[in-house]
Amino acid sequence: MRLPLPQVEPDPTLPRSVTVYEVGPRDGLQNESTVVPAAVKAEFVRRLAAAGLGTIETTSFVDPRWVPQLADAEEVLGLLGDEGRGARRPVLVPNERGLDRALTAGVGAVAIFGSATETFARRNLNRTVEESVEMFRPVVERSRAEGLWVRAYVSMCFGDPWEGPVPVARVVDVCRRLMDLGCDELSLGDTIGVGTTGHVHRLLAALDGAGIGPERVGVHFHDTYGQALANTVAALRDGVTVVDASTGGLGGCPYAKSATGNLATEDLVWALEGAGVSTGTDLDALVATSTWMAGHLGRPSPSRVVRALAGG
Amino acid sequence: MRLPLPQVEPDPTLPRSVTVYEVGPRDGLQNESTVVPAAVKAEFVRRLAAAGLGTIETTSFVDPRWVPQLADAEEVLGLLGDEGRGARRPVLVPNERGLDRALTAGVGAVAIFGSATETFARRNLNRTVEESVEMFRPVVERSRAEGLWVRAYVSMCFGDPWEGPVPVARVVDVCRRLMDLGCDELSLGDTIGVGTTGHVHRLLAALDGAGIGPERVGVHFHDTYGQALANTVAALRDGVTVVDASTGGLGGCPYAKSATGNLATEDLVWALEGAGVSTGTDLDALVATSTWMAGHLGRPSPSRVVRALAGG
Repeated sequence: MRLPLPQVEPDPTLPRSVTVYEVGPRDGLQNESTVVPAAVKAEFVRRLAAAGLGTIETTSFVDPRWVPQLADAEEVLGLLGDEGRGARRPVLVPNERGLDRALTAGVGAVAIFGSATETFARRNLNRTVEESVEMFRPVVERSRAEGLWVRAYVSMCFGDPWEGPVPVARVVDVCRRLMDLGCDELSLGDTIGVGTTGHVHRLLAALDGAGIGPERVGVHFHDTYGQALANTVAALRDGVTVVDASTGGLGGCPYAKSATGNLATEDLVWALEGAGVSTGTDLDALVATSTWMAGHLGRPSPSRVVRALAGG
Repeated sequence: MRLPLPQVEPDPTLPRSVTVYEVGPRDGLQNESTVVPAAVKAEFVRRLAAAGLGTIETTSFVDPRWVPQLADAEEVLGLLGDEGRGARRPVLVPNERGLDRALTAGVGAVAIFGSATETFARRNLNRTVEESVEMFRPVVERSRAEGLWVRAYVSMCFGDPWEGPVPVARVVDVCRRLMDLGCDELSLGDTIGVGTTGHVHRLLAALDGAGIGPERVGVHFHDTYGQALANTVAALRDGVTVVDASTGGLGGCPYAKSATGNLATEDLVWALEGAGVSTGTDLDALVATSTWMAGHLGRPSPSRVVRALAGG
């Protein structure tokens, strides 16, 4: 397969290089209804690595009752061997029990999943925001004691389906608490995809004012309202250099009302490589991987780049 | 219908207001395979106007043999009466014959459709770029003599499917010639959707250097590679305040390999109103209009906002 590549005209307002934090195997598959065998998941991670993606979140040690799709975390990591370990192969750990499993599996990096809003903390974690921070404290402390790299997701940073717009000050407060636990990096999630560029700018400025500079921050946009790439570019102009994306746009069905699709890695890479921002990735290989995975999922990729180059 | 609206956090890098140049009834429908009756087209324009869209390109006086969908231009304008006339209801005129028809129909504004590349000029207009400019000369002169407002579309401003990347200098040269004819506004088209933000910036800077400032320029992005909104925001940061968009994302099938969909007006409005940029439009009414039109076309809207708010 020989595909057209983006035409390069450098954008002087963007950084020279960006780290794509690939969430397809975890956040992407977690939201797919078709259960994928462990061997396919391991092969997915291998293909993503071969396509040049440095950081790949491989799986989740969440309770299998809540996310059956990822009940095979140990099996996937076992199949991956050393390819699934190290500081650039994080796994999600919801709590200490998940951390125990992750440590047994020999991971080198973990991610915790917090909430900026009380309602989502209650619904997702069955705790208040403050109680959830206390739940994460031993997870982060033990992870650091084991030498693991730690990321903290913060969901609902822009809007919340129950609470509406989320005040920037509240997001900053939660972020500050999580960083104070000792996390290495934050991922700011627009879980329902409602944010726009001014909101992105204001939140990043407020975080910077609270001592959390853009070098500690990744952004995680969903394309529910078509804003994911525009918001990502806005964040990059403000100094962010880590962007979460999902190869093929996996995660959430694009045809359903509840569409919550992740930014597609291919669409991000097109934007960045075209603007002279190095991502280290091979677009052909990413598109081929999405096409291969679409076959396993039984539906076309929602990525615009994949559709344009491979016909879906 | 009572829908969620974007959360407003002003973006200080964007203009205070933007004119949405609605292309759905012409550029959108032109690319739809389902033929729509004239009465539905007229009602579409009326609904768009009621939703607050100031400028609406209503139809095209192209030869009906080439675009059967728009063969009913006179009928549509007849049904619209005064609502389809005036300086903010342009119609496309490909040549003097089209202008004759448009003048007979009593229009107040016209748009011509040029090309930045020789290959597309040859394929679309059966002329060289220079010959096409000469073909447009009497169209623009007569239009101005009649007191009409004149827009010049320039297609293939970023990439061309046969020639590849299009040099900025060539685009500037064509734009300069068209403006020298006496046009009021340019519309820079990324017809195949390959451009990225650095390319947008460089082209706008080069045009400004050639005496065509952003106040004379509209931008027209296609979402083939998912770049339309990010590129639009980049253009707005450089001073552009006119953006072409198509309600519901009409134009080109999003499910086909040849997807060439226009930026959806709803997704643009979400981005702009959320960033504190006034568009004067009513998002509920736009979404309702897209849902209504989707019923006539027999397929869901590709707009992400429409899908999120109305389930497609």
